[in-house]
Amino acid sequence: MCQLLGMNANTPTDVLFSFAGLAHRAEEHRDGFGIAFFEDRGLRLFIDPESALTSPVAEMVRHYPIRSHNVIAHIRKATVGRVALENCHPFVRELWGRYWVCAHNGDLKGFAPVLHGAFRPVGDTDSEIAFCWLMQELAKAHAGVPTVEELTRTLSELLQVPAAHGSFNLLLSNGQALFAHASTKLHWLVRQHPFGAATLADDDLSVDFGALTSPQDRVAVVATEPLTTDETWTAMAPGTLQVFVDGAPFAAVACR
Amino acid sequence: MCQLLGMNANTPTDVLFSFAGLAHRAEEHRDGFGIAFFEDRGLRLFIDPESALTSPVAEMVRHYPIRSHNVIAHIRKATVGRVALENCHPFVRELWGRYWVCAHNGDLKGFAPVLHGAFRPVGDTDSEIAFCWLMQELAKAHAGVPTVEELTRTLSELLQVPAAHGSFNLLLSNGQALFAHASTKLHWLVRQHPFGAATLADDDLSVDFGALTSPQDRVAVVATEPLTTDETWTAMAPGTLQVFVDGAPFAAVACR
Repeated sequence: MCQLLGMNANTPTDVLFSFAGLAHRAEEHRDGFGIAFFEDRGLRLFIDPESALTSPVAEMVRHYPIRSHNVIAHIRKATVGRVALENCHPFVRELWGRYWVCAHNGDLKGFAPVLHGAFRPVGDTDSEIAFCWLMQELAKAHAGVPTVEELTRTLSELLQVPAAHGSFNLLLSNGQALFAHASTKLHWLVRQHPFGAATLADDDLSVDFGALTSPQDRVAVVATEPLTTDETWTAMAPGTLQVFVDGAPFAAVACR
Repeated sequence: MCQLLGMNANTPTDVLFSFAGLAHRAEEHRDGFGIAFFEDRGLRLFIDPESALTSPVAEMVRHYPIRSHNVIAHIRKATVGRVALENCHPFVRELWGRYWVCAHNGDLKGFAPVLHGAFRPVGDTDSEIAFCWLMQELAKAHAGVPTVEELTRTLSELLQVPAAHGSFNLLLSNGQALFAHASTKLHWLVRQHPFGAATLADDDLSVDFGALTSPQDRVAVVATEPLTTDETWTAMAPGTLQVFVDGAPFAAVACR
């Protein structure tokens, strides 16, 4: 199984603290890592089939405070698909002149949809097949970039299809919102004024967000397991899609 | 105008030396850089709207010897399109389960093709429009990944369309071959046994490839301007498409 990390913020925010917590878990999840940062419509994607603990790319990400509104990160423990660059999450495709980014935690059994559209997997993971199918169905459902509200409705219908084939915890973003689908395990919290301190669960690192933020800053963080010990994380109910815009919960819908 | 660098090799090869030469030219081309490395079907793409001289991402690329069969790099001096992450070359799209990478040097005037296919620009450069159009037309011309020979024929017909609108020096790769189209300026060479020494034109850096290579290694390098002073570079004739496979010239055709 893998571990996911997502961030959605109302002001460009770095994820150095959270990524440090995630990377610490790479001891058990050493089959690659990836992190995608949206900057407006632009996207940076860093992937490496090496462990996030030893990869020079991860080392750079740990020290370069890239500020972003939407981030999706993943550390991989290979289940389906070899350890290879093309199997590293997150995956990226372009649709309607926007990049779409997706990372998956879980296993799908026997999900072999017909891919008749413009999206084909490059690697050999069940995750990339599911992402390509999602993009294909989104392309059929809308003529252009939908509103976040419309997209939430469409995704809540689509996500249950792959989810019926196994565990399908998923983070998806097009740079406008962060979509988090829980199938078995996903937690989230919102950090906002008054900011406090936080301590990583896997490390002795702590940070005082009050000293680093402005009162109007707001950031939502989503992770497979709570990353900190002294903040309140909300566990998502299986089968729900939680959407974040501008660092706040925008919608929570049951996928059925 | 921008500067291009391409590499095609028969064995995974790093581009530290050539990228050092290219990055040195970033003094005049400070509006971003990008470099894409194929590893089999997988792809690493590093882009930054900062100059290759100061970007922490470029710094990492300069010191991490990523070995690849096909590399495309670009340093940007903005002409059309703002300085922004989404306007950094190379651009990437997926088609037929393969990533396709493209970087462009030049300016197109009045090239506004109808984009009715699955490829739309995310940023606002003429280069990304031309790339999306190329991908759209490739998708119509073939049912799946063509042979390099077929692809050469199709590209030689397609490339002249945007090229009629201005200068269109282009590097394109799907990880199987490197396609170089010269409109005004592009140079190439092949390094093979017996390897000698080479000195960068823009730096006092030199390298003895004989000490770093095996006799069967072969690598083709393409660049806007010759990168070294003591090797023989071939200037491409305007309107030609030069294709490299396994570090050697595979085909050279006139685009008309």
